[in-house]
Amino acid sequence: MAYLNENYLKLQAGYLFPEVARRVREFCESNPEGAKRLIRCGIGDVTEPLPRAVIEAMKRAIDELGRHETFRGYGPEQGYDFLRSKIAQHDYRDRNIEIADDEIFVSDGSKCDCGHILDILGDQNKVAVPDPVYPAYVDTNVMAGHTGPARKDGSYEALVYLQCNAKNSFAPPPPQEHVDLVYLCFPNNPTGAVASRAQLSRWIDYAREHEALLLFDAAYEAYISDQDIPHSIFEVPGARQCAVEFRSFSKNGGFTGVRCGFTVVPKSVVARTENGRRLPLHPLWQRRWSTKSNGVSYPVQRGAEALYSHEGRKQVRLLIDHYMGNAKLLRDAAIGADLTVFGGVNAPYLWVKTPEGLTSWEMFDRMLRELNVVITPGVGFGAQGEGHFRISAFNSRANAEEASRRLRDLQ
Amino acid sequence: MAYLNENYLKLQAGYLFPEVARRVREFCESNPEGAKRLIRCGIGDVTEPLPRAVIEAMKRAIDELGRHETFRGYGPEQGYDFLRSKIAQHDYRDRNIEIADDEIFVSDGSKCDCGHILDILGDQNKVAVPDPVYPAYVDTNVMAGHTGPARKDGSYEALVYLQCNAKNSFAPPPPQEHVDLVYLCFPNNPTGAVASRAQLSRWIDYAREHEALLLFDAAYEAYISDQDIPHSIFEVPGARQCAVEFRSFSKNGGFTGVRCGFTVVPKSVVARTENGRRLPLHPLWQRRWSTKSNGVSYPVQRGAEALYSHEGRKQVRLLIDHYMGNAKLLRDAAIGADLTVFGGVNAPYLWVKTPEGLTSWEMFDRMLRELNVVITPGVGFGAQGEGHFRISAFNSRANAEEASRRLRDLQ
Repeated sequence: MAYLNENYLKLQAGYLFPEVARRVREFCESNPEGAKRLIRCGIGDVTEPLPRAVIEAMKRAIDELGRHETFRGYGPEQGYDFLRSKIAQHDYRDRNIEIADDEIFVSDGSKCDCGHILDILGDQNKVAVPDPVYPAYVDTNVMAGHTGPARKDGSYEALVYLQCNAKNSFAPPPPQEHVDLVYLCFPNNPTGAVASRAQLSRWIDYAREHEALLLFDAAYEAYISDQDIPHSIFEVPGARQCAVEFRSFSKNGGFTGVRCGFTVVPKSVVARTENGRRLPLHPLWQRRWSTKSNGVSYPVQRGAEALYSHEGRKQVRLLIDHYMGNAKLLRDAAIGADLTVFGGVNAPYLWVKTPEGLTSWEMFDRMLRELNVVITPGVGFGAQGEGHFRISAFNSRANAEEASRRLRDLQ
Repeated sequence: MAYLNENYLKLQAGYLFPEVARRVREFCESNPEGAKRLIRCGIGDVTEPLPRAVIEAMKRAIDELGRHETFRGYGPEQGYDFLRSKIAQHDYRDRNIEIADDEIFVSDGSKCDCGHILDILGDQNKVAVPDPVYPAYVDTNVMAGHTGPARKDGSYEALVYLQCNAKNSFAPPPPQEHVDLVYLCFPNNPTGAVASRAQLSRWIDYAREHEALLLFDAAYEAYISDQDIPHSIFEVPGARQCAVEFRSFSKNGGFTGVRCGFTVVPKSVVARTENGRRLPLHPLWQRRWSTKSNGVSYPVQRGAEALYSHEGRKQVRLLIDHYMGNAKLLRDAAIGADLTVFGGVNAPYLWVKTPEGLTSWEMFDRMLRELNVVITPGVGFGAQGEGHFRISAFNSRANAEEASRRLRDLQ
């Protein structure tokens, strides 16, 4: 009889967002007045329309597919050269980072690639993840059999958890012990923390000493305003030897429903075989794409390309400014309510301490009942998230203003 | 140090299409006159523009994303209900096949899903594949560690190869031995063969006796003209207990560059754990999508939906008729040239015996030199493909007519 992948049975029910939805539904049913006032600052999904440059480019591309002379069928599995070269030029070489066009792999989103990268890595790897953490890093490792069973607090045996807390500014230092793979995410989801050049340098030193691979998720890099904070791990010397970077058009271009991102795999990154041969990962990743995909939708790639045009860049800037304007409003309001607030400066997320020793679910209920504002309880992102909650700045300005007014009333 | 997935090192270089390209390039360089006359009947990629209904639906969807009131961010990972229900209704329930909306999983193509399905299956499974075969079935199993090393003839140890030949009409019977997973593809790429209801019934009997899982690739079902040939394995009683079906909009709607397909996973399909528990695969596949994807691009899903509209169905019919008109021309010409021809009646591929004991690469070279027509040598699809070549009917009518004229001269 066919066997199933038993590792899936170790997965905890994806309880966070379903449980949020259940409590919100229950509240709305028993409280129709509160339901009308509800403002959702929970999920990290964009709310503003696609940039005009994207709309126009995608429609042009679709028209091309409607004419004989310009029709295109299968594209290159790793992405069209027109997009790979734009990315490599604008996001890297224009910033003095050495990345070749064919080190860029276009994908349908960084969430997908964070999972797919494990396809080309061995099951023997010791894996470290931040805590709190974007759940996809953990769950894809559970599925791949890289962990033991779940513990009572939701953590998994055999994973190394890197505690992120106020003491380390939510940018954890490398562990004492040896690990082979490290997930890092800056600007961070959920904490909104960023890593300095010095902090990333320490990670690169660790990676080179342990010959570890850094899986660097930079999906929120566009939100960095501080001039000294690196947008890419490849800004830091040595990263070309030990890092892979995930990027997304979801949060800069508003592509959460359009689906496009990319992964940077430098040709200089190597990994080992069981008997100690060191081989580059680039050809394995290239082969993975050729065999398991036919590339990203052509009109979508043309839409992503338009984000790099003069108009596209201006329109992205306006989107970022919009969400970061929201973040500032919410941050000022939370501080005004005597809450301890992290993030929200170089990232669209605020990470807030719950007052008076409330658990994060108790705070969730209080915000829902008293302010009719939905937030995300920190413990949903990991044990270290207890005592915190996340406020997302992805919203209309009117909603952000109203949520800020209500936050000031929180006493 | 980080370990790589060593199974990738077992993969044979994807030599078929690169080698085809190399020989074509060499020919064109040394033969500029022949280069001008070149007609490509090699790759199975559509050539005709997208249906008008798709163009309009996709552009409307993009306009929706450009307005506040109609903007959408993340969609459901398994696909929008509007598309899942259209598929389940039109492709299944309207044909008296019991498939629920939530047994349809929308994807960015059936090639992707043929690989991804292994995510939820155990590594202990004994796997059977046809020979000749669509290479992705084999390569994804190699990557997942389900095979031994490659043999000299390009086949892999530990896989069971199901010989497809003229004697069994290229629809192989179940093997004597036990296997857990079986890949079947009808209408077949590369042979153009179809399977009768009786032949599929034998496979379902086998699957139920061995508690095996049938992975049924029906990407070319729209090309079936014979009333008695099932379009879906779920037309055959018992399949709901033992089969998963892959479908694509690539070859009916011309979506090879737009990217959309779907997989049908009935809730009644179970697989076992190591200790003998039988569990449904549906929740595992659901979870895989939630964790590793954010679903397919919204405008693409609207485009796929439009294929089911009254206009869309008429336009798809014209596309199929176009390619099958090509297939008839090419088939008649090949028969007229005294070649032994299979396929091309319920499928857009002709599978042709090489004359006079030529190898398939020798025939490739002869077609290229004498007729300036590119075909695909059969041996590229597996050892049993030797002595055959594939002619693709995906072309303009003018090219198909001209290729047919030249074929008649082959003596």
